[in-house]
Amino acid sequence: MVLPGARRSLSSLSGILGRGRKIVAIGRNYEAHAKEMKAEKPKEPILFLKPTTSYVSQGGKVEIPAACKDLHHEVELGVVIGETCRDVRQADAERHIAGYTCLLDMTARDIQNAAKNKGLPWTVAKGYDSFTPMSEFIEKGRVRDPHDLELYCFVDNELRQKGNTRDMIFKIPELVAYISSIMTLEPGDVIATGTPEGVGQVKAGQVMRAGITGLVEISFPVVDRRP
Amino acid sequence: MVLPGARRSLSSLSGILGRGRKIVAIGRNYEAHAKEMKAEKPKEPILFLKPTTSYVSQGGKVEIPAACKDLHHEVELGVVIGETCRDVRQADAERHIAGYTCLLDMTARDIQNAAKNKGLPWTVAKGYDSFTPMSEFIEKGRVRDPHDLELYCFVDNELRQKGNTRDMIFKIPELVAYISSIMTLEPGDVIATGTPEGVGQVKAGQVMRAGITGLVEISFPVVDRRP
Ligand SMILES: [Mg+2]
Ligand SMILES: [Mg+2]
Ligand SMILES: [Mg+2]
Repeated sequence: MVLPGARRSLSSLSGILGRGRKIVAIGRNYEAHAKEMKAEKPKEPILFLKPTTSYVSQGGKVEIPAACKDLHHEVELGVVIGETCRDVRQADAERHIAGYTCLLDMTARDIQNAAKNKGLPWTVAKGYDSFTPMSEFIEKGRVRDPHDLELYCFVDNELRQKGNTRDMIFKIPELVAYISSIMTLEPGDVIATGTPEGVGQVKAGQVMRAGITGLVEISFPVVDRRP
Repeated sequence: MVLPGARRSLSSLSGILGRGRKIVAIGRNYEAHAKEMKAEKPKEPILFLKPTTSYVSQGGKVEIPAACKDLHHEVELGVVIGETCRDVRQADAERHIAGYTCLLDMTARDIQNAAKNKGLPWTVAKGYDSFTPMSEFIEKGRVRDPHDLELYCFVDNELRQKGNTRDMIFKIPELVAYISSIMTLEPGDVIATGTPEGVGQVKAGQVMRAGITGLVEISFPVVDRRP
């Protein structure tokens, strides 16, 4: 299948990596996860940015920074933007989406908790290099319903997370509309739509295996970062 | 003067806009500003990200979003990265810098205060389109000492901010070293080095005039955003 211009260049991970300028991530977008974080169900989407330098693709490793004592996995559906857009109406959101990806929003939970307690940004906790391992690009036509996808994450052979995108508090059209009312979205930008419950620690020597059932699977070893 | 390859393409604002993928901003990097925010002097740099879609260059306007009732100006020195780098030592920082820019880190103070109180990210408060008005690129050779620059910001004809970069708590080499120990820096990335005291509200119909004495001046009208 030949894709139209803008989308063709996104049809590989290197296309996403090369073109996108931001990752807009959503906090607490599954009620059971908000609960496990002892947080309230949000009334509007909670946004934060991750730098695109945090991407790592299959074959790479996730590194635990020396400053982090509690690195957590968060498996998420990523939405890949196909066209520059702003003030998108929910009804039009779908046409600005090029496809999807499965990603892990790696989080230095100890650093994040310290930041939250001081009212400080989450940037360091979420932004280290290798903190966004990501699958190949999944062309939109391969996904029948993005709100009926099973997400899972194993650590070694233990199932840690299993959830369904139908449980998102804010659905994809709401997210695209809300984000684009604040900041322009551009081709290759990725929306990390939030994680279901079951987040937890990974340690050096373990392997994370995550995916979207029937669509894609990724596997990343975890190592200590050497300066 | 002919600049070497990587830097030549940065020697215009469109070069920065086109190439950079992140703005890493520093919170509370001047003691008098930390004090006016009723915050402690930080023990390590406070980082947050702004999206590159927030840039606006001379000729454009700064828009007040409908959700914001208290938009603040923060005049800052921007450091423009010239080369991909990670784990930069302070002694080597200078060679990874292509030049400088003067920018305004526009901040929806009401939205930021609400976020701080809930331990939530500053992304929305800092990330709207037009929230990073920026000057032309200032080639490194034109700046004798980046730690002896006078920053100023007028609103209409009232002087609101006047400070000197010598009062930064964390100097530029410390910032480059600290940030690059967390995330890779890339050509065109901008470090917004923090604002001196005197931040305050701007309203629709006012004009901000800011600059670095002897080097550059920018002027941006403030308007209400129409959805
Ligand atoms: Mg997450
Ligand atoms: Mg960015
Ligand atoms: Mg600032």
